[in-house]
Amino acid sequence: MAHILITGGAGFIGSHLCERYLALGDRVTAVDNFVTGSADNIKHLLKEKAFELIEHDVSNPFTPAMESDFGKVDFVLHFACPASPIDFEKIPLEILKVDSLGSFHTLEVAKKHKARYLIASTSEIYGDPLVHPQTEDYWGNVNTTGKRSCYDETKRFAEACATVYRAKYGVNTGIVRIFNTYGPRMRLSDGRVVPNFCGQALRNEPITVYGTGTQTRSFCYVDDLVAGIMKLVASDCADPVNIGNPDEYTMLEFAKFVIEAVPGTTSKIEYRPLLHTDDPKQRKPDITRAKKVLAWSPKVSLADGIGKTLEYFRSKL
Amino acid sequence: MAHILITGGAGFIGSHLCERYLALGDRVTAVDNFVTGSADNIKHLLKEKAFELIEHDVSNPFTPAMESDFGKVDFVLHFACPASPIDFEKIPLEILKVDSLGSFHTLEVAKKHKARYLIASTSEIYGDPLVHPQTEDYWGNVNTTGKRSCYDETKRFAEACATVYRAKYGVNTGIVRIFNTYGPRMRLSDGRVVPNFCGQALRNEPITVYGTGTQTRSFCYVDDLVAGIMKLVASDCADPVNIGNPDEYTMLEFAKFVIEAVPGTTSKIEYRPLLHTDDPKQRKPDITRAKKVLAWSPKVSLADGIGKTLEYFRSKL
Repeated sequence: MAHILITGGAGFIGSHLCERYLALGDRVTAVDNFVTGSADNIKHLLKEKAFELIEHDVSNPFTPAMESDFGKVDFVLHFACPASPIDFEKIPLEILKVDSLGSFHTLEVAKKHKARYLIASTSEIYGDPLVHPQTEDYWGNVNTTGKRSCYDETKRFAEACATVYRAKYGVNTGIVRIFNTYGPRMRLSDGRVVPNFCGQALRNEPITVYGTGTQTRSFCYVDDLVAGIMKLVASDCADPVNIGNPDEYTMLEFAKFVIEAVPGTTSKIEYRPLLHTDDPKQRKPDITRAKKVLAWSPKVSLADGIGKTLEYFRSKL
Repeated sequence: MAHILITGGAGFIGSHLCERYLALGDRVTAVDNFVTGSADNIKHLLKEKAFELIEHDVSNPFTPAMESDFGKVDFVLHFACPASPIDFEKIPLEILKVDSLGSFHTLEVAKKHKARYLIASTSEIYGDPLVHPQTEDYWGNVNTTGKRSCYDETKRFAEACATVYRAKYGVNTGIVRIFNTYGPRMRLSDGRVVPNFCGQALRNEPITVYGTGTQTRSFCYVDDLVAGIMKLVASDCADPVNIGNPDEYTMLEFAKFVIEAVPGTTSKIEYRPLLHTDDPKQRKPDITRAKKVLAWSPKVSLADGIGKTLEYFRSKL
């Protein structure tokens, strides 16, 4: 039985990780301050003996009481970070802090316990990529002073932190670059395209497509993502690894797909002017490394994944 | 009489800034922890009534005693950061902290006092640039997990911090992107090309040129740089501004130049294999913005600048 410390454990991806490790018989300590995480995401886990929740902002150091409470740790997964465009405007300083101060604090725990460490990085470190699809060797195209820079740069910084702790202190660090992911426990109001379109279709509102709808995204179902992350955690891989689904859709294709997946909806596509937010025009992972190093590739079809996601959103509306 | 708080005030550039503001009749509080700064750089200022030194690591918050000591601040210049390649390997965590935690702490001072804030950024945020010369609109080409990432990414992060404090809290932030600078008070042992070549020529040692010596650099004399920085501080310019000298030299040209500037030296050029350090192959500022917004351009010739620098290094040998 391994002990896994997961920051952002009540978040969208974090809560799925907690659930899966518990299902394998591991002990899980989730850390969350509920800024964007939700108690709903983990309330079914609270009754489990092997599960513990620490309500804490990891931008602040763990107290000695907390450290003695959670005890020996085998794996540290740093997944605490608001990740939605709406957060970038509302709580940018919190975002800057959680992957700088929060990375220092969690890396110190990994160092102390000689634990394997994984930082949740993101395809956003590639910015508006000039290389397509993105391999891990691509260094990115990010505006340091743009509207999204709080998120993009804090994640780039977190990767540099992991790099320093490995080189200087021998911490067994890993870096997962997470591409667009969707599934149950996403926030309906988080401003990203999957909950936007799903919510609009379920409420019979217009599906809002920005610009011509030709910008593309690739969507990975959360179960696939979590399987990839757990393989990366179990490995000793030091290099960044893209985890995502390379199936690419234009926003227009995806809007039509969602409309078809909601029988009886009266929603129609409505075009809106493109917002100027340094929003990337294209994003698609090259997953050669994940296939080779982790023997991982995504399994869930968009139809199945969107079906389960719509079911979840229906229960929330 | 304005009051200027300068972190890294005992450093190469910081100490010149302290000196110049004092010469203008301003009050200066220098903050330094002497990790790479030197007491020698400011010992001639300690007798000035308008000068105060606080020995402090800005990665830690200012204590209430310090804050009450320095009192009302009109300008905050955050120049504390080890900046030499040798530091990147020796003290990478300190580097990561000073432009993340240190930026938060200094930005909070600027916010509290409604002071103009300037972050010392760097041409390193352009990484190994794919655009030449570099304009401020170029987003850079930086390896997040490379040997130089502690420095490059902490500076990119600091720019994102300034951006957030301006957008969210209305702090009057400015960003100077400093290109290669040289002059008195550089550390002879700091591993950069100007002190390397000058030290080698003065000691009659071989001038070590890596690779074919065709990689280029542009060098700005510190007096020119400081003049540009002070103009930027005095402006309300929010956008990043490159300050540097666009005159470009290959390493081989520069080696020959230094040999000629040291009469009687027996030093000869010695070629060494190129080190794999993500070292940029080319770097040259486009200073159109500085010319337009600040009416600034460099004035000091390489011959004059190297002359004064050699004089300084001679006094240190």
